[in-house]
Amino acid sequence: MHIPSRDLTAAQRYKLLCGLVVPRPIGWITTLEPSGSVNVAPFSFFNVVSEDPVLVIVSINRRNDGRIKDTLRNIERAQEWVVNIADEPLAEVMHKTSGDFPSEVSEATAVGLELEPSAEVAPPRIKKAPFSLECRLWREVELGPERRLVIGEGVHMHMRDDVIDPATMRIREDSFFPVGRLYGDRYCWTRDRFTFPPANPPKY
Amino acid sequence: MHIPSRDLTAAQRYKLLCGLVVPRPIGWITTLEPSGSVNVAPFSFFNVVSEDPVLVIVSINRRNDGRIKDTLRNIERAQEWVVNIADEPLAEVMHKTSGDFPSEVSEATAVGLELEPSAEVAPPRIKKAPFSLECRLWREVELGPERRLVIGEGVHMHMRDDVIDPATMRIREDSFFPVGRLYGDRYCWTRDRFTFPPANPPKY
Repeated sequence: MHIPSRDLTAAQRYKLLCGLVVPRPIGWITTLEPSGSVNVAPFSFFNVVSEDPVLVIVSINRRNDGRIKDTLRNIERAQEWVVNIADEPLAEVMHKTSGDFPSEVSEATAVGLELEPSAEVAPPRIKKAPFSLECRLWREVELGPERRLVIGEGVHMHMRDDVIDPATMRIREDSFFPVGRLYGDRYCWTRDRFTFPPANPPKY
Repeated sequence: MHIPSRDLTAAQRYKLLCGLVVPRPIGWITTLEPSGSVNVAPFSFFNVVSEDPVLVIVSINRRNDGRIKDTLRNIERAQEWVVNIADEPLAEVMHKTSGDFPSEVSEATAVGLELEPSAEVAPPRIKKAPFSLECRLWREVELGPERRLVIGEGVHMHMRDDVIDPATMRIREDSFFPVGRLYGDRYCWTRDRFTFPPANPPKY
């Protein structure tokens, strides 16, 4: 099938792109409401884009009812958030936080998620997450009527003790099983891993 | 382990981010050299970020020797490229194209990759890819001394016949097995999939 994007509706494009650009990493974002309550929501139009400085992107759309999502509103007001990564033990509760909770309800409380204070930003991080990155707003790009691209600088990193060898800073692969996003309510595990020979063989 | 990003070297940050923000989708990009030869290279600081308009991002860094990568040079000159998605049958050849080929050598020729003319842009697409998105430069953001964020508008889509049901435009899951990026020379398969119950149960 070969088709100009302009011949598809936005809903058709969304369905195709979500199904075909996979697996996507999941940025599970904690922000603070003006009330002090903690908002938690997962996003998969998300990735790391730079190490110097540390930068991550997330594209946030409007809600189905046209309102700005709590996460975006909180990021724009407070300019701070935490991106957490979910692994197998956290996958189901992460999925639950994608639900449409009223702004005044903390997803963290509603799903029983333990939080921990952050080191440099006000929003807390998710205590049991294998990796949390404290972020400050670095740049925002208007993508269209429905979406904004938020670029955050990751100022502080938290790695769960079992996930990193602190001496070598290598990932301990046998205790880190993150979850990838497909489409709809579908995800993939990441235990089925493989290595190719180096594509750049040393020349000596 | 809890550490401010500024206390790590850029190389340490890169290693941690690549290992912890996973699985990443792979944008396998075809561009045209001024000579007409086709450059092919995979990038995993990549994702879809919008459906209206269709936008994808890719962050491209300098080569180890400090030079601008061929892909970025070609995108900036010609403002056109194709993002292809690799599935299992293409994974190994995709990995091979990550090697450090001289600019005058076409990776496509070197690894024996079949190409097909695109519909709206000059660079060709990868014939056997399950999905190819023809892109035009939409915006560029300087991220730091080493990296630029390229935002492309996806103007034309190609879906391999077995991957999409043309009547419903649904993905045929049992013939689409894309590959995710981990770190170093490591990847994950995506056959191990699961579904959670909808997080937003209908209220009626």
